[in-house]
Amino acid sequence: MTVLRIAILGGTGPHGRGLARRFALAGHDVRVGSRDVARAAGAATELATYLPAGTNLTGTDNQAAVDGTDVVVLAVPYAGLASLLAGLEGLDGRVVVSCVNPLAFDERGPHALEVPEGSAAELVAATLPGSRVVAAFHHVSALTLQSEEDLHDESVLVCGDDRDAKALVVELAGAVAGRGGIDAGPLRNARHLEGLTAVLLGINRRYKARTSIAITGL
Amino acid sequence: MTVLRIAILGGTGPHGRGLARRFALAGHDVRVGSRDVARAAGAATELATYLPAGTNLTGTDNQAAVDGTDVVVLAVPYAGLASLLAGLEGLDGRVVVSCVNPLAFDERGPHALEVPEGSAAELVAATLPGSRVVAAFHHVSALTLQSEEDLHDESVLVCGDDRDAKALVVELAGAVAGRGGIDAGPLRNARHLEGLTAVLLGINRRYKARTSIAITGL
Repeated sequence: MTVLRIAILGGTGPHGRGLARRFALAGHDVRVGSRDVARAAGAATELATYLPAGTNLTGTDNQAAVDGTDVVVLAVPYAGLASLLAGLEGLDGRVVVSCVNPLAFDERGPHALEVPEGSAAELVAATLPGSRVVAAFHHVSALTLQSEEDLHDESVLVCGDDRDAKALVVELAGAVAGRGGIDAGPLRNARHLEGLTAVLLGINRRYKARTSIAITGL
Repeated sequence: MTVLRIAILGGTGPHGRGLARRFALAGHDVRVGSRDVARAAGAATELATYLPAGTNLTGTDNQAAVDGTDVVVLAVPYAGLASLLAGLEGLDGRVVVSCVNPLAFDERGPHALEVPEGSAAELVAATLPGSRVVAAFHHVSALTLQSEEDLHDESVLVCGDDRDAKALVVELAGAVAGRGGIDAGPLRNARHLEGLTAVLLGINRRYKARTSIAITGL
């Protein structure tokens, strides 16, 4: 396995912490980024407590986390995405992974927000035309990622328009789900991955469960 | 199990044939509907050849198939949906199941079409305001439905705004997939189910597979 240097921006939230934990456990060099350095350092220290010796997981501010990494994961809520992107530099040519789900909740449950670009991932691509944007990790539960549970049943769907960047993330997904990543097509498919999260969250509420998806028949 | 009288409109296509076969095998009374009576009768005869004695499966024209049934399944291609609906009467109060996927194909693969109502199922609901519209069965492969394969790994997602109609279809889904149906929320979620079909068809091409989905964690 290639050891990757991975920045997880918005890495102090539940989804970011979960991904950081799994990537570090798989042997990657992980930096948790936050607007607030102390918060990032705190999250890294807390996460490291539960990780074996020899894992690499540190915390820093978002910009410092980005510099010199191979993969930048955006794990912020949709509401914070535009301002995060506006404040960052040095993303040209870099693999940027969006796991952002543009969701809202009303009396009928979770639902997907309309994004003028089609999806959060396409918004990222439009904002960072020099980056190699990939969408992935939308459906893996943050709580499951933070647990000791084996995710061998679950599939991580990966879409993007840069073939090599997508292949890298498909491989990286093996650190999270047993089945590894599945090439789910071009970046325009991100809208379907993001929308499915609303369906899964609704099922979680209705069935008091923590669901994800598996692609059968592969 | 309650024996249902089920009409499958556009039932001579691969998806319709597959559903007809599975519903009949489960003991329901199935009518395959088509614009062309001879075609419907031919499909029913062919399907019946592979079904055990005692199963109920007949073919007739779409309107005759609808009359007196409990559940009307729309299994036509999206391009034929509006004209099918315009030609039918007597759907008021009836449970109408849309498994229509508004899809198109271009050089980048399958993709979802924009539907002004949000989804094919919501188009059906807008066209038939007196019907009890449910969306389901989008992801089960037509070829798998027509095979002897056991679908015990797969999940059928069911959404709709009429609680009783949805519960009926959740139960009916047990005839198709081992896990039965899963309540996937209000009808507005149909756009996500329909869109996911484009993703799965793309995966089928890329991996030379026949995929479906399973909800894990239930």
